[in-house]
Amino acid sequence: MRIAIAQINPVVGDIDGNTRKIVEYSARAGDEGAALVAFPELTTIGYPPKDLLLKKSLIQENLDALDVIAAESRGIDVVVGYAEPNPRPVGRALFNCAALLRDGRMASRYRKVLLPTYDVFDEGRYFEPGGTVQEGGLLSLDGCTLGLSVCEDAWNDDQLLQRMLYPRNPVTELCELGVDVLLNISASPFTESKHQFRREMFAAQARRCKRPLVLVNQVGANDELVFDGNSLVLDKDGRVVAHAKGFEEDLLIADLDTLSGRCEPPVEGVAAVHDALVLGLRDYVRKCGFNTVVLGLSGGIDSALVAALAVEALGPDRVVGVALPSRYSSEHSVADARALAENLGIGFQIIPIGEVHGSFEHTLAPMFAGHPPDVTEENLQARTRGVLLMALSNKFNHLLLTTGNKSELAVGYATLYGDMCGGLAVISDVPKTTVYELSRWMNARAGRAIIPESTLTKPPSAELRPDQVDQDSLPPYEILDEILERYIENDQGASEIVRAGFEPEVVRRVIRLVDRSEYKRRQAPPGLKVTGRAFGSGRRMPIAQGYEEVHFRHGEPAVTPGA
Amino acid sequence: MRIAIAQINPVVGDIDGNTRKIVEYSARAGDEGAALVAFPELTTIGYPPKDLLLKKSLIQENLDALDVIAAESRGIDVVVGYAEPNPRPVGRALFNCAALLRDGRMASRYRKVLLPTYDVFDEGRYFEPGGTVQEGGLLSLDGCTLGLSVCEDAWNDDQLLQRMLYPRNPVTELCELGVDVLLNISASPFTESKHQFRREMFAAQARRCKRPLVLVNQVGANDELVFDGNSLVLDKDGRVVAHAKGFEEDLLIADLDTLSGRCEPPVEGVAAVHDALVLGLRDYVRKCGFNTVVLGLSGGIDSALVAALAVEALGPDRVVGVALPSRYSSEHSVADARALAENLGIGFQIIPIGEVHGSFEHTLAPMFAGHPPDVTEENLQARTRGVLLMALSNKFNHLLLTTGNKSELAVGYATLYGDMCGGLAVISDVPKTTVYELSRWMNARAGRAIIPESTLTKPPSAELRPDQVDQDSLPPYEILDEILERYIENDQGASEIVRAGFEPEVVRRVIRLVDRSEYKRRQAPPGLKVTGRAFGSGRRMPIAQGYEEVHFRHGEPAVTPGA
Repeated sequence: MRIAIAQINPVVGDIDGNTRKIVEYSARAGDEGAALVAFPELTTIGYPPKDLLLKKSLIQENLDALDVIAAESRGIDVVVGYAEPNPRPVGRALFNCAALLRDGRMASRYRKVLLPTYDVFDEGRYFEPGGTVQEGGLLSLDGCTLGLSVCEDAWNDDQLLQRMLYPRNPVTELCELGVDVLLNISASPFTESKHQFRREMFAAQARRCKRPLVLVNQVGANDELVFDGNSLVLDKDGRVVAHAKGFEEDLLIADLDTLSGRCEPPVEGVAAVHDALVLGLRDYVRKCGFNTVVLGLSGGIDSALVAALAVEALGPDRVVGVALPSRYSSEHSVADARALAENLGIGFQIIPIGEVHGSFEHTLAPMFAGHPPDVTEENLQARTRGVLLMALSNKFNHLLLTTGNKSELAVGYATLYGDMCGGLAVISDVPKTTVYELSRWMNARAGRAIIPESTLTKPPSAELRPDQVDQDSLPPYEILDEILERYIENDQGASEIVRAGFEPEVVRRVIRLVDRSEYKRRQAPPGLKVTGRAFGSGRRMPIAQGYEEVHFRHGEPAVTPGA
Repeated sequence: MRIAIAQINPVVGDIDGNTRKIVEYSARAGDEGAALVAFPELTTIGYPPKDLLLKKSLIQENLDALDVIAAESRGIDVVVGYAEPNPRPVGRALFNCAALLRDGRMASRYRKVLLPTYDVFDEGRYFEPGGTVQEGGLLSLDGCTLGLSVCEDAWNDDQLLQRMLYPRNPVTELCELGVDVLLNISASPFTESKHQFRREMFAAQARRCKRPLVLVNQVGANDELVFDGNSLVLDKDGRVVAHAKGFEEDLLIADLDTLSGRCEPPVEGVAAVHDALVLGLRDYVRKCGFNTVVLGLSGGIDSALVAALAVEALGPDRVVGVALPSRYSSEHSVADARALAENLGIGFQIIPIGEVHGSFEHTLAPMFAGHPPDVTEENLQARTRGVLLMALSNKFNHLLLTTGNKSELAVGYATLYGDMCGGLAVISDVPKTTVYELSRWMNARAGRAIIPESTLTKPPSAELRPDQVDQDSLPPYEILDEILERYIENDQGASEIVRAGFEPEVVRRVIRLVDRSEYKRRQAPPGLKVTGRAFGSGRRMPIAQGYEEVHFRHGEPAVTPGA
């Protein structure tokens, strides 16, 4: 018996468009001889819909869509995700459901039990948990019983997780009812480490339950979240027997009798981060209705990487790079920017900022007389560039791409309303060390220095005053990035990081910079999430707050590096 | 028997400072002869701590604080809120607790049962719900049994709420165990309608349970949220027998035998919104470590109101107003700005933007040749002002106040990185019609036109092109604000709003403007919440999304106004 995994890329909220896609994939699955086609979580609406779920009209349209899909998909069973109003007057207003559409109508529906409410997930805000899995969880198909669950329902394994968030395990409950094959429909976003961990998690479930498992995952990006697809079929020993594409739509047909199907090679490591950024950029531009992008090219590595990613996402004809040299820009900066643009074949313009910068200084001179230059004057340059780039964005309807990396954004080494301007921060969750790794990887793959060698080798500099380099203000990026990973991604405190061998003074300074920069990040553009903890909705910090890592004050002994 | 209600203003995360305040208030309560002093929810940490709760070091310090408070508060019972680690390996990592500290140690602790996870609240992200209320919910005090609960535990009344979110009612459960008096410690933020609704809610609980009720609420602002205090004591018929101050710290002593105490008059209506904005502004400036603020004065009503509020919050010596006239500014604009500054006694500067504006146009001329002027040129002016104000902010360490109102922010009638620049958007949750109401109220209270009469009477204008007025682009504010309230605060769809009597074309246009402006609001500064639904963490919308209110397309009949 064949089943089809419809790994589609929905647009959040576009119920008409998503419905057409579901009908189209169901027809293709029928043509391929599948008895059943399964779609990702909340298929009709797309994931994550956020507060669109509070719109009653949208909920009604998502119910209407089920009727359309059922009517137009005769001859094949369809498992599709949707949001169902809670008929009871007590509890949250909705359930997160998976319907079985059969013979033109809804034959049954399963209600998701485990509702992720952590990191970027807010399902407890909208959904009531399902009750017994028996209600809609068992699907009979040609003498085989499928055990249906939705995403988080399968993420409660005490072997793999540090903490069991939930007292129930719906997959175990399904198996106890006697299922032959597990089927999970998901919208599980990419992170560099999780996308392999997800495979391990589902393999562990298959082994524990001694059942084959089919995972249908969403693909495509919606705002900050990139869904990598990578749907798969595992045998009862957790071995991959079929694997859909990563980062692309796919219709994967699997035979449940022989446990076989097409196996696409998984994309891993830096290549996966690259593909996630390209997909995230492409989908944000497309789903926001833009055709073209513009970005400032400083000659440095961050903007070079973003330009190269934009070309992969959109093609060179839809990317415009702009060099905005100031009196402090080195000669090689414009030369490197130009070389990059030529290597990529993108549009390129040079707009010197000297006249505007001078007029700002002249206008402010009466107020600033007697005050020595400080970061104010540096910010003026960055903001002049931001205004000029936004003017190009407004006039020509280009989406402005923000080019700052995660290390900078973490410590506030960025100018609010300056280089932080833009509609999408492409690499704001990519640490500087990974920016280098990705750039070298792209050059190696191309077999030539798309990103100029001098961009890769010169010391990073904001060029906002004479002879400035990043390491005047910051620790070396190898050290900074490891401290940031511990502090931001792993929730380690100052004393724990010091115990791992970092200089107390450096740790203290980095943490203080991170904490004091919260106000900048609150106004940052959305950024593509690729790590376990991105700034944005996955990290919700107060701005006006008095917590400081005070362990040093409490007499914590100073630890020398390596101790 | 006397108990003390310690309505304090904590700083989120400042455990040392909050602890000192708790100890100080406990001593004062003891001096007043109280047998018990009760503090607001999560007293040690302050509310809302958001993802600070993920810091293990902070949780440990909040536990250590309990030891300090217990040791230093002998002779009086102390009820204090704190976060407790979940000792079990299953479930969320924390409980939201209220401890009874007695005789130098923790005598018992109650775990909050109902965890708000809607609007601005995310408690499901951090906390595991408590089990039986018997565990720590009953406090014996001089032969009287207090029934202790935390905030949301008392917000589940089927008479007053449209929807019962929770299947349990901890207050009822406590009463069934036999309590004499109910005690609820809260951190319940202000909104214009809720702050009276809260009193009704607690009165309904008192009447239903036929018990007196003591409510201890937090006061003070943390980022977007303003806590109004207004702690109170109700008799078993729901009548107010003691009432603490609104918008200020207070120590209210109540006699539980005679059910009597001091009764401060409640602040209601537009006066309450005024007080909330003043407190929100003052606390944000203070808790972020600023002394002074700067803002642009356009001569219009929004910036005039914000300046007047800033003077009430900080005093005139800590406020600087700046007029930034352009070639399109009318003569009366600078005159009105100057008159306002003189009325308020604040610092005042005039910085013409013509030179910078001209240099931007000149710099962009080669790119813009052949393209007619559009919103790009208008944005250039707003952004020039934003950069100049941020330069003053950076150079003199003023916090820049953003002056846009909710109506503008809703429909995107604001320039990102222009007039949206700033650290705090003081009136971004105040509709334009309320801006007028507040301004007139402040003038009436002062007995003179602090906000110049011409500012109140001239047609609103952004003055970004000749003879521009807001109503060239927007419906009259009376109509706009009612549509916005229905759409944003009440989650009404287009067809519902049209049925209420608004022109379909106007409704469609307003909704489209709101939906298309999400990208601007994502990068807006934090704004003080005063309505039932503010932009920011209370309204979480995707940016790249395809949902449109399509009811018109579905053949909805056009309805004429008033029909």
